[in-house]
Amino acid sequence: MKAGVDRVKDLLGLEYLSKLQIEQILDQAKPMKQLFTRSVKKAPALRGRTVALVFFEPSTRTRTSFELAAKRLSADTLNIAASTSSVQKGESLIDTAKTLEAMKADFLVLRHSASGAPHLLAREIKMHVLNAGDGAHEHPTQGLLDIFTILEKKKKIEGLKVAILGDVAHSRVARSNLWGLTKLGAHVTVCAPETLLPAGLSEIFDGKVTVTSHIDDAIKDADVVNVLRLQMERQKENLMPSIREYSELFGLNLSRLHLAKRDCIVLHPGPMNRGVEITSEVADSHQSVILDQVTNGVAVRMSVLYWLAGNPVASSQTAIAAESAGEPRL
Amino acid sequence: MKAGVDRVKDLLGLEYLSKLQIEQILDQAKPMKQLFTRSVKKAPALRGRTVALVFFEPSTRTRTSFELAAKRLSADTLNIAASTSSVQKGESLIDTAKTLEAMKADFLVLRHSASGAPHLLAREIKMHVLNAGDGAHEHPTQGLLDIFTILEKKKKIEGLKVAILGDVAHSRVARSNLWGLTKLGAHVTVCAPETLLPAGLSEIFDGKVTVTSHIDDAIKDADVVNVLRLQMERQKENLMPSIREYSELFGLNLSRLHLAKRDCIVLHPGPMNRGVEITSEVADSHQSVILDQVTNGVAVRMSVLYWLAGNPVASSQTAIAAESAGEPRL
Amino acid sequence: MKAGVDRVKDLLGLEYLSKLQIEQILDQAKPMKQLFTRSVKKAPALRGRTVALVFFEPSTRTRTSFELAAKRLSADTLNIAASTSSVQKGESLIDTAKTLEAMKADFLVLRHSASGAPHLLAREIKMHVLNAGDGAHEHPTQGLLDIFTILEKKKKIEGLKVAILGDVAHSRVARSNLWGLTKLGAHVTVCAPETLLPAGLSEIFDGKVTVTSHIDDAIKDADVVNVLRLQMERQKENLMPSIREYSELFGLNLSRLHLAKRDCIVLHPGPMNRGVEITSEVADSHQSVILDQVTNGVAVRMSVLYWLAGNPVASSQTAIAAESAGEPRL
Repeated sequence: MKAGVDRVKDLLGLEYLSKLQIEQILDQAKPMKQLFTRSVKKAPALRGRTVALVFFEPSTRTRTSFELAAKRLSADTLNIAASTSSVQKGESLIDTAKTLEAMKADFLVLRHSASGAPHLLAREIKMHVLNAGDGAHEHPTQGLLDIFTILEKKKKIEGLKVAILGDVAHSRVARSNLWGLTKLGAHVTVCAPETLLPAGLSEIFDGKVTVTSHIDDAIKDADVVNVLRLQMERQKENLMPSIREYSELFGLNLSRLHLAKRDCIVLHPGPMNRGVEITSEVADSHQSVILDQVTNGVAVRMSVLYWLAGNPVASSQTAIAAESAGEPRL
Repeated sequence: MKAGVDRVKDLLGLEYLSKLQIEQILDQAKPMKQLFTRSVKKAPALRGRTVALVFFEPSTRTRTSFELAAKRLSADTLNIAASTSSVQKGESLIDTAKTLEAMKADFLVLRHSASGAPHLLAREIKMHVLNAGDGAHEHPTQGLLDIFTILEKKKKIEGLKVAILGDVAHSRVARSNLWGLTKLGAHVTVCAPETLLPAGLSEIFDGKVTVTSHIDDAIKDADVVNVLRLQMERQKENLMPSIREYSELFGLNLSRLHLAKRDCIVLHPGPMNRGVEITSEVADSHQSVILDQVTNGVAVRMSVLYWLAGNPVASSQTAIAAESAGEPRL
Repeated sequence: MKAGVDRVKDLLGLEYLSKLQIEQILDQAKPMKQLFTRSVKKAPALRGRTVALVFFEPSTRTRTSFELAAKRLSADTLNIAASTSSVQKGESLIDTAKTLEAMKADFLVLRHSASGAPHLLAREIKMHVLNAGDGAHEHPTQGLLDIFTILEKKKKIEGLKVAILGDVAHSRVARSNLWGLTKLGAHVTVCAPETLLPAGLSEIFDGKVTVTSHIDDAIKDADVVNVLRLQMERQKENLMPSIREYSELFGLNLSRLHLAKRDCIVLHPGPMNRGVEITSEVADSHQSVILDQVTNGVAVRMSVLYWLAGNPVASSQTAIAAESAGEPRL
């Protein structure tokens, strides 16, 4: 694949996209979001296409967001939860995917506990594969919606100081943010308890990422703080202090937020553990953009579907605006 | 809110609607029902809107009815069952609702075991909240469809004698019927075992409701008998006689039905325990309107969605009739 | 019902269809499949109709195929899984079906563990009932899609030698294949372990079916081999050799396939137990038409829905082709 605005078949991770590709997806998300201000929040761009939502881990939020994104582009959707799928009957993941491909589904949105599962499918099938979270690897649409939200509020990414707080080592959200934000020129500081600090991040990201276990250092002068969800199940692995201790040492509260820039914004991928990694005061403050993230998630996922579908992009903004009024074609 | 035909944002219970508002919803359900006689049973009234069906208790019947109502108005639907939702991840009900609101869903249909849950959401979010059953409180669309069905058969509610049989104290169906029917001028007699008799009903409903534990008194000369579903789980609480005894003392059979007026109609919200609270002879008799209730349920829920959406109502009947033929706008 | 191209209300089994009716459904599946080559894989033939998918046994593959078939004909779909349905509340199957009928659903697609369940419903309700697998009885759309696939590759059914391998006695797939293939003039050999050999097949099918427990005899000179899925649960009933032994004695591998005609094709209804009833070499070979079956399944189910709906058939091919381009009517 050439650098630049080349299209790719799949969205596997932000690691594999160029700066220009990321910017193109983000740019296209804007007219998608404008649709939401109309009473008919729908464009016919993907009418007659099928989006299969294959979730091996439960996730109402991400599944719902993708489902709405598909429906607002007039695609048909198929919900396939692992608990009811043929996988129970011993069918391999690849056979499941090939079956959906044979049914002429166009997009396969996959959430899977194994890192690399979507890559495996992407090689084996001709459908567009969208990674909706693979193990501790990437969650690229979450990264894109976080960046879109930052861009909306800060007008640029270049030069921003972004702090990511929490279990960075095991977080696919963090990983996708790191790839996307550094490609677009932000400086990122990640902050986690010593036992959860990922090794080698500075090397991988060529000095654009700082690692610390001191939350105050991470937050100081930040333009953006992105608080990760605490995975309660990590507790059992003895990698973490108690929840109470975690909350005191690494939770974001108002007094800590005062260390950041005055206009610092706060992100969280949800669902929140209020009072653990974030206090309600912060979550509900005017600096919180957590609900903007949710709105933007639908728009960004529409943009990704549309972009992967390979529709001409040049006049998309005009075209979608025009179409959403009447019964247009795109 | 003013009295009269003022619109309200939410449908929380029939307690909160005026007689005129109830009549308006029922009136608008008629053209909706007419749609069902066409091969294309669909109007584009809510095209591009999203209806989120959030069910914390399983209910195929009510969920399916709302889902069809939404689809027949061309809305997109989202099914969110509690067992798969973020609520499992510890997210609060309000955060779940705010997430759906941020995704720009327009309607939230909520079934919840806690009385008042939809009221809580209605205050916190701008979406339309529809109560699809909250604890033992109200089930307003069931009340509306029961009244619509009575009206269809009896042409009026004013002056009718209606008997409600069963566990009235714990029944949201009964409560919504009581509010709606008394507002529209019916006289209602409720009949239950002594241990399940609700206190203070006569006072609340200002003499329009009679309470008895003698089923023959309740049925005598009734125009309408509404048989409640026996909640088998109440058995465990020792508030009830055995099922066999309940059936003998409080079940509706043909000989008891003969005490009512000759043209008395029989309602049941379903699913029925045949042979317990109602015999199959009664359920399948020509006096039974149980399947009419099911049909009317879809039409009434379409009407509620449409009414809450705030579309102009004046010419709705004409408009919907016209549109359903071609590709109309409303 | 008259012989010939008479329409029927329901699809209960291929036993009940005439040769001409089967040919008509297969013929109509061709323009449906052509739709899949377009970007808008949709025709408006069933717009405004409702297809209820009622599955008492889990089946992602069949349910998904029917759901896509319905959506590609622009029908609305309702997913009703037994685990969440009113059946849990003790409602009878017939009451469930009558409820869906009262909601004005048009088609009821039923998967049920009891042979004859769809027949029961078909008698009681006016909706179109489609058998999506009833116990060990029939799975008619699987039979139709298998035959469609054979026809596509072999251009005819008359005179073909078809081998069906596996637990024929308990297989609804086998039974539907037997009825359909013999009506269309194929000679079928069924092959199973002694303990699983069905009695009386030759008599029922009037000499058109041969029964053997020698796999080499069955495969020899075959034009088509249809490999049944091994139901692992049969193991427990001690009717079968071990899986390893079964695989050796009755599994299809490349060396066995060489006994068949050189251009023999291999079918499997999926999901496959690779390495048990079929080796991966065979499943992924150029003789395998397993993924064609999946594609054809959607087309055949579209054809069945359309055929049962009673739309005029004469000009269907032209009509659908024309409509799928613009916003047509059928």
